[in-house]
Amino acid sequence: MLTQGTTADDDRVVMAHGGGGTLMRDWIRSHVLPRLGNSVLSPLTDGADLGVLDGEVVFTTDSFVVSPLKFPGGDIGRLAVCGTVNDLAMMGARPTALSLGMIVEEGLHLELLDEVLDSIAAAAAEAGVQVVTGDTKVIEHRGSLHQAAEPADGGLLINTAGIGTRQSGWAPAAETLAPGDVIVINGNLAEHGLAVMSVREGLGFDSTLRSDVAPLNSFVSAVLEAGIRPKFMRDPTRGGLAGVLVDIAEASGETVEVEEAALPISTTARHAAELLGFDPLTVANEGKCVVVVAANDAAPLIECMRAHPLGRRAAVIGRVIHRRQTHPPVVEMATSAGGRRIVQRPYGEELPRIC
Amino acid sequence: MLTQGTTADDDRVVMAHGGGGTLMRDWIRSHVLPRLGNSVLSPLTDGADLGVLDGEVVFTTDSFVVSPLKFPGGDIGRLAVCGTVNDLAMMGARPTALSLGMIVEEGLHLELLDEVLDSIAAAAAEAGVQVVTGDTKVIEHRGSLHQAAEPADGGLLINTAGIGTRQSGWAPAAETLAPGDVIVINGNLAEHGLAVMSVREGLGFDSTLRSDVAPLNSFVSAVLEAGIRPKFMRDPTRGGLAGVLVDIAEASGETVEVEEAALPISTTARHAAELLGFDPLTVANEGKCVVVVAANDAAPLIECMRAHPLGRRAAVIGRVIHRRQTHPPVVEMATSAGGRRIVQRPYGEELPRIC
Repeated sequence: MLTQGTTADDDRVVMAHGGGGTLMRDWIRSHVLPRLGNSVLSPLTDGADLGVLDGEVVFTTDSFVVSPLKFPGGDIGRLAVCGTVNDLAMMGARPTALSLGMIVEEGLHLELLDEVLDSIAAAAAEAGVQVVTGDTKVIEHRGSLHQAAEPADGGLLINTAGIGTRQSGWAPAAETLAPGDVIVINGNLAEHGLAVMSVREGLGFDSTLRSDVAPLNSFVSAVLEAGIRPKFMRDPTRGGLAGVLVDIAEASGETVEVEEAALPISTTARHAAELLGFDPLTVANEGKCVVVVAANDAAPLIECMRAHPLGRRAAVIGRVIHRRQTHPPVVEMATSAGGRRIVQRPYGEELPRIC
Repeated sequence: MLTQGTTADDDRVVMAHGGGGTLMRDWIRSHVLPRLGNSVLSPLTDGADLGVLDGEVVFTTDSFVVSPLKFPGGDIGRLAVCGTVNDLAMMGARPTALSLGMIVEEGLHLELLDEVLDSIAAAAAEAGVQVVTGDTKVIEHRGSLHQAAEPADGGLLINTAGIGTRQSGWAPAAETLAPGDVIVINGNLAEHGLAVMSVREGLGFDSTLRSDVAPLNSFVSAVLEAGIRPKFMRDPTRGGLAGVLVDIAEASGETVEVEEAALPISTTARHAAELLGFDPLTVANEGKCVVVVAANDAAPLIECMRAHPLGRRAAVIGRVIHRRQTHPPVVEMATSAGGRRIVQRPYGEELPRIC
């Protein structure tokens, strides 16, 4: 039962890497700080001193369990930074600081862990945010946590929490949604989920399908700087676009109407979804945001989005309309075939371990 | 490979509980919010709106992988709240808000998860802090993550991050440590690690050995309100007291001298450590803090500590002295037998999965 793990394999994580002793300290100093170090993180105190923060503070957290750890277009490290940065961005906040909690399974290749740390550093630099505090724990290997090259390969789970600040006086709020509001998305649906799935299932369209995981904060800043004040923003990750549209219907108490023909989706993604048997509306996205604005903000929003690298394929996909008195708040889709169907929040998870 | 997990077992966590769909939403509304809900958490937005924070902001994170999930005196939920609250307290900050990231293994009994949520709620109330944002992921069962009653039992890993605030103008800082400083601990050593170990190994002294895991923020507040400004505070968790003493020696660049006879340790803990073959100095503690003060603050500090329920057995255990020129900064212990020995930071982990 007791795994002492007090000798270090040169190549792989052992229990002692998480033991709070000399090996852990040496590993942090030689592998983590050269990649992520900064004046706040590097003293390795119990927490990070951020000083006085200007504006309203927003706080969020997300854990990442994606399998496999690397996929076309990204890896768990990039996902962990972007996921939390984007939650802050969706609240209208600029990211100020991230925490990094890693739970490592013994047997993980140290080289792979270094690659993930590099990826965290690159994504954090891209988003203009620093990792300021962290924690590492090691758990015993009991059958790899991820799809692995060999049975002895250990896995990695990551939690990031983030602090952001927002200038007082404005916040997106679902309660303000009302008939007439226009629903916009910044680009193609379902790419992330299908890219992860394609490598997991070995389906071989991995050469063209890539995760679009990206930090959205500069994109949201561009929208705000254009003077547009979204009424609601949400990144359609787990639960997909369907989940967010149902959220909008429930929050407004009205009907959400979407047009299937207006949904941006690549031919490759459409074919992959058909092959795998998934509805693109319920597949998890990364680097995407659903933005709801008042009708007269829709045209300037689309123009602003399309001027940004993350919004080239931005499109109006639907609107909030008065619900018929006899109906509950629902999402109705006008299908390309000319019919209508109700879009529902998925019950559970069509694609587990996708983020 | 693909676990759809779209049907819910009444008793246990299934993959769909983490899928971002209806089942997850229903579970959060019926199990999480009744226990942890508050005006910030309950809207279930992408993050928590904390408003403008007064004072300097401190940010910290910790993951918890303790096995088993419940132990005499506590469980993973109480540990997860106290660990992060205490990291903030050690930085001199009052806890403002916690995040809760849960990674659940399918097969975990929902009743046990409810108990852990109850425990989180109770510990948060004790510490006077709220969980304001959270995330839940479910991973496949691959041999339980913890010592389990039956093979199908799933495990639970928790990350908490915390935000605290501190009034400007004072912060404990290891760099200020200097010869003459006095080192104090608030109570008995090694109880947490040995209590967890005793149930894990089935050693049967579980009736008397209990984890002392507790939030230390009211204790630290009492010290600050007494006008004492510690030069350094640290909770001796992983790495034990030995790790913290070596930190003090390294930060000051001087010698740390401790007296074995002065170390508070119960007879039961001493016997348990002997039986298990552990050095009580390297066993993880909870609800304990090492406080270093200038010499003239030592007597008022001990008096203040002993007046608080968490400091009844507070004791001066050592001091910082000038190091001999030929020696590196080390920790020297005057043993009860009249000898001297060097105390070293443990290399790895004597007791894995203890927090």
